[in-house]
Amino acid sequence: MAIKLYGPMVSTCAVRVMTCLHEKLVEYSLHPVDLLAGEHRQPAFLSKNPFGLAPVLEDGDLTLFESRAITGYLAEKYKDKGYDLIRHQNPKEAAFVKVWIEVESHHFNPLIHPIIYHYFVSPLLGKTPDQSIIDANVAQLGKVLDVYDTRLSSNKYLAGDFYSLADLHHLPYTHYLMKTPYADLIQSRPHVRAWWENVSSRPTFAKVSTNMKFE
Amino acid sequence: MAIKLYGPMVSTCAVRVMTCLHEKLVEYSLHPVDLLAGEHRQPAFLSKNPFGLAPVLEDGDLTLFESRAITGYLAEKYKDKGYDLIRHQNPKEAAFVKVWIEVESHHFNPLIHPIIYHYFVSPLLGKTPDQSIIDANVAQLGKVLDVYDTRLSSNKYLAGDFYSLADLHHLPYTHYLMKTPYADLIQSRPHVRAWWENVSSRPTFAKVSTNMKFE
Ligand SMILES: N[C@@H](CCC(=O)N[C@@H](CS)C(=O)NCC(=O)O)C(=O)O
Ligand SMILES: N[C@@H](CCC(=O)N[C@@H](CS)C(=O)NCC(=O)O)C(=O)O
Repeated sequence: MAIKLYGPMVSTCAVRVMTCLHEKLVEYSLHPVDLLAGEHRQPAFLSKNPFGLAPVLEDGDLTLFESRAITGYLAEKYKDKGYDLIRHQNPKEAAFVKVWIEVESHHFNPLIHPIIYHYFVSPLLGKTPDQSIIDANVAQLGKVLDVYDTRLSSNKYLAGDFYSLADLHHLPYTHYLMKTPYADLIQSRPHVRAWWENVSSRPTFAKVSTNMKFE
Repeated sequence: MAIKLYGPMVSTCAVRVMTCLHEKLVEYSLHPVDLLAGEHRQPAFLSKNPFGLAPVLEDGDLTLFESRAITGYLAEKYKDKGYDLIRHQNPKEAAFVKVWIEVESHHFNPLIHPIIYHYFVSPLLGKTPDQSIIDANVAQLGKVLDVYDTRLSSNKYLAGDFYSLADLHHLPYTHYLMKTPYADLIQSRPHVRAWWENVSSRPTFAKVSTNMKFE
């Protein structure tokens, strides 16, 4: 039974799931959702995700939402296929993957999301970006990335010396950040920069991210 | 090798981990961290968690932070001991546990955290709570809980008809919410209220939460 992914190709959360599907060598079909037209607030979509947000993944009769739940599900279901994103044979390494997945969710995402939203999405919706919100989040994100830089000075990847779901979860928003005047948050920190050059050039993400354009 | 948990007994994130340890019937020692005195910003604590936040769990030579990474680690390590919080023998049920864990992280926590922080923590720090922040988050949390109420009208628990880590993660903040003037967010929604009465009365949480007082 084929996997269906509902979400726009430019959406960070959909790209997170697509990148994971490519790492796991899992076939899927992509079903665009027109967010600007409000398709995600129509009954058909709300019956898949009551919060009305993309992406949604259907695997046979299973309907899942929340991008990080979907990647976790795929990484576990296909643990022996494609690249092992969760280090399932090494409980200690797996534990660090969990820690840095949560760091992305609770420290990184809440700060980078408003930067990208105000910089790229607000203008699309005909609103003026709120520069004071951008500035406040840029300042705080810098502090979080200082911790990353130290971590990445002794580990090649966030969870250890292996690429994992923790790194993967950071890719979509950082990709957009690099197209803003705030790319220096990454460029000015040598270990973060080296990590970014490394993880963003993996063939899976390089392929998926070619469609990530806001125009 | 005994498990050590570093964190104050009143801390929501430490209670999240303690509740999990009790569900899994795992012995541990609790090491208080004096947040008001800034102990979490001292080098000794920062060497355990570079973000300077409680809780931290030590399991032998493994040092972990982020409460939800710790509960996930414990639920998996002790999957055959105590109560199974992740439905590890049923991939479909396990997938819904993942979904609702992410809903707590990305929809519930970002809204309830500022309410509790401004209502209880700000005064402790000698600051005046910002009522407009509280009000905005109360309004948004109401919308999220409307989705919960529908979900809980057809499922006894968030992930399905079984208690799981997804429910557990909600307990500490909701416990404090019930002591604010905003308890009606729960009380006014019949299925959410029934769920709360059910999950908060589990012996594990009833025991751990007796210490949850801000005085
Ligand atoms: N935590 C959710 C966030 C989903 C989300 O915010 N999706 C965006 C696209 S990246 C969306 O559907 N936005 C439409 C809207 O906000 O109206 C996840 O990771 O899946
Ligand atoms: N996402 C983290 C949050 C940890 C957190 O915010 N801990 C609070 C106690 S509940 C803390 O240490 N606060 C001290 C401070 O903010 O200075 C987790 O779940 O562990």
